[in-house]
Amino acid sequence: MYCSVCGNATFSQIPPGDNRLRECCAHCGTVHYVNPRPVVGTIPVWGDQILLCKRAIEPRLGKWTLPAGFMETGESTGAGAVRETVEEAGARVILGPLFSMIDVPHVQQVHIFFRAELLDTEFSIGTESLDVRLFSERDVPWAEIAFRTVSTTLELFFADRARGEFGTYTRALEQAAAPVHLPRA
Amino acid sequence: MYCSVCGNATFSQIPPGDNRLRECCAHCGTVHYVNPRPVVGTIPVWGDQILLCKRAIEPRLGKWTLPAGFMETGESTGAGAVRETVEEAGARVILGPLFSMIDVPHVQQVHIFFRAELLDTEFSIGTESLDVRLFSERDVPWAEIAFRTVSTTLELFFADRARGEFGTYTRALEQAAAPVHLPRA
Repeated sequence: MYCSVCGNATFSQIPPGDNRLRECCAHCGTVHYVNPRPVVGTIPVWGDQILLCKRAIEPRLGKWTLPAGFMETGESTGAGAVRETVEEAGARVILGPLFSMIDVPHVQQVHIFFRAELLDTEFSIGTESLDVRLFSERDVPWAEIAFRTVSTTLELFFADRARGEFGTYTRALEQAAAPVHLPRA
Repeated sequence: MYCSVCGNATFSQIPPGDNRLRECCAHCGTVHYVNPRPVVGTIPVWGDQILLCKRAIEPRLGKWTLPAGFMETGESTGAGAVRETVEEAGARVILGPLFSMIDVPHVQQVHIFFRAELLDTEFSIGTESLDVRLFSERDVPWAEIAFRTVSTTLELFFADRARGEFGTYTRALEQAAAPVHLPRA
């Protein structure tokens, strides 16, 4: 690795007063910390339907997701969630309360979803989407959902809607076991 | 800036399919994204008291804070909050629900606090603290709180405790105006 400040090679060491290995620069003294990244998105609602996007990019190209993406510097979580909803689904929403915060430690991410109300059905297909559609609960393509944080959020959302009261949920995903390829019978 | 992958100079450009300037490497093609960082902590409770730490490090050396710090890679938000509580206050807690998630966009951070129950009063002064003490609500040093996310979280916490029901709160801090130095009368 190289120092992004001065371009010299870095080395791994535990800095004084720290307790973890960091990439450090002997030339300029910079310590390069790496931290998890927030992913922010919405659950856009229209009547009894929710809006999903079919991904046009890897990972999970062709799978369905809630509009979401990496939070950018200078914005709030809610503003980032609204921005992603515009970018991926061309959809205008009124932002609602925080609904789920799901840790994905094995990829250094925290996925944060807000409830949201669509202002109209004039959504459109963003550059990172192949399709954007409203789904009733019974039509959700559960086997074709891109990410576990999305399927978990949708399950919690529909359960709360059924009981008529919405909460705020935290979850932590474990790393999935490697797929088991069973021999054909 | 320099590329952390290959050490060559980077340049600012909007990558294809993106809509923001990023530091990009012409030599190896790496795009260097920068994202906000999660800060995680707890509100450690013992009876009607809460635990605060007096900071031994900048920023806000000598001011009081809830135990909190940057989330590390490979951990969940809750595990990070518990770790910071051990590191800064030597305190063992049972982690409770998410209480506050406060955006601080001008410093590219999201501060996330969980309620927590102290298991005992055998806490101790961590290397990043000058003092660690339990405070009743009436004794909280409000004028000496290190960060607005902490004072906001404490205000929300005591208000919820007074009404006997705890919620989950999201807030976004605006950048504080520059201090106004009034001439002496």
